[in-house]
Amino acid sequence: MAAKKKSKSTSKSKSPQRATKPLSQLLRLPSGPVDLSSLDTAATHGFPGKGKEDGPALTQALAPEISDLQERLYANGRSDPENAKRVLVVLQGMDTSGKGGVIRHAMGMVDPQGIQLTSFKVPTDEERKHHYLWRIRRALPDPGMIGIFDRSQYEDVLVVRVEQLVPVSEWNKRYDEINTFEKKAADEGTTIIKCFLHVSFDEQKARLAARLASPDKYWKYNPGDVDARAKWPAYQQAYADALERCNTDYAPWFVIPADRKWYRNWAVAQLLREHLVGMDLSWPEATFDVAAEKARVARS
Amino acid sequence: MAAKKKSKSTSKSKSPQRATKPLSQLLRLPSGPVDLSSLDTAATHGFPGKGKEDGPALTQALAPEISDLQERLYANGRSDPENAKRVLVVLQGMDTSGKGGVIRHAMGMVDPQGIQLTSFKVPTDEERKHHYLWRIRRALPDPGMIGIFDRSQYEDVLVVRVEQLVPVSEWNKRYDEINTFEKKAADEGTTIIKCFLHVSFDEQKARLAARLASPDKYWKYNPGDVDARAKWPAYQQAYADALERCNTDYAPWFVIPADRKWYRNWAVAQLLREHLVGMDLSWPEATFDVAAEKARVARS
Repeated sequence: MAAKKKSKSTSKSKSPQRATKPLSQLLRLPSGPVDLSSLDTAATHGFPGKGKEDGPALTQALAPEISDLQERLYANGRSDPENAKRVLVVLQGMDTSGKGGVIRHAMGMVDPQGIQLTSFKVPTDEERKHHYLWRIRRALPDPGMIGIFDRSQYEDVLVVRVEQLVPVSEWNKRYDEINTFEKKAADEGTTIIKCFLHVSFDEQKARLAARLASPDKYWKYNPGDVDARAKWPAYQQAYADALERCNTDYAPWFVIPADRKWYRNWAVAQLLREHLVGMDLSWPEATFDVAAEKARVARS
Repeated sequence: MAAKKKSKSTSKSKSPQRATKPLSQLLRLPSGPVDLSSLDTAATHGFPGKGKEDGPALTQALAPEISDLQERLYANGRSDPENAKRVLVVLQGMDTSGKGGVIRHAMGMVDPQGIQLTSFKVPTDEERKHHYLWRIRRALPDPGMIGIFDRSQYEDVLVVRVEQLVPVSEWNKRYDEINTFEKKAADEGTTIIKCFLHVSFDEQKARLAARLASPDKYWKYNPGDVDARAKWPAYQQAYADALERCNTDYAPWFVIPADRKWYRNWAVAQLLREHLVGMDLSWPEATFDVAAEKARVARS
């Protein structure tokens, strides 16, 4: 980590488009009051290339290092599950912000064996019988794994709040509960990366229209998305509060400008890379006598 | 499917390395007695390139078409789950045959959202309380999904047989049970692709030695693999019987020569591609009034 950070900060490029700071600093939500309207949804902070034309290639270029680091993480999970670390990437954002696109294009670069993906939908009857964090806890990543949450515990202070599914007194105490929950996961060795995919009102409209303009995108369109869109200000406020009240050192929020898909995908992949680098992952020790096993194989 | 087949058979190349038949024909295990020792573990049937140097690139070249077809499959699963098709890729093979490598390099090309991967390990206490097919049934792919079984129901006629974990009378009736089980899954709309990764005794030894030769591979080494290796003939016989007795039209076996990793990965990806093509996947119809929704979005 130290070495990586050093190489970043000492190799300052003259190009203004070259990142001089880690993306995890550039996109980190500062503590304090959150005003989403002041955060540019079309920004390309830290992007090292030209733009749309080299976005996919620069994202793909991260694959070998992510792949190597993920294999180390996974190897530790196999060899020493008691002590192995874990990663959890939480994806939140308004409809069309690109949670699916990030999973396909950024997380898709990771070996499927190392991923535990959970898409949280409207709770099932079974899930409703339990505390809202019950299903979340069950989906936390195993040792050595990268968990991905497509939506998450935050739905319980977002849609639940805006649609008034529980009283104010109920959802209002959840922020602290979520912090406590995330603290426990972090203490158990989970690096938590919470990504808010920040898309603009106008861009959402364009994306919904695009889904209706082409029959190969109909399946992505849900009439309910327009109902939620009608409540945009309430959702933005609910997001602002969730980001503000659950923005901790052990489970920080990153605000990903999401109007440009190529930037959004690159940014999440780069955040994952930086966090994996920071975990200082080494290959696990052999859990057997190497010389003795070499002899056994030679004889076999 | 018809169109594809036609283009394959009418575009016969003069190069002997160009496949003139679909790989799903070339690698399909014929019905009748199975003699694994007669099947070349280093063959490269149907490979359209030169060899190791262009193997990874030719595998990667399949990604766009697989990705498009998988998205159609997935879209149907979302729009019309009652009628949507499913795919199940079963991976079996001796230790080091490359089940993990296939998942990483071939299945890794597919959107993680469209994959349901299950690695069947030694049954848990919970699993032991149930019929051996109980955990398998629960892992069958949902509508629109590609299931991957890393090991499978076949362990119950392989390790269970060789290690004599149940009496002969018990495992002997399982072949028919498995056929019945697979027939039901196929009838429910699941395209089943069973891949036996066929590695040679010598190549296994080389791969075990390689794992011991480099600290970044120690985690892949399991001393128990050498114990299983000592029972190679019994395992080969158990495999031969499983392949012979469970080789049906609705759940056929493909024998993948697995001594060359680059061929093995390409072959499984190509088999998946051919099967997806054969499913004749179209985009689902809209489940809403497109014109009305366009108007709603425009007003929003």
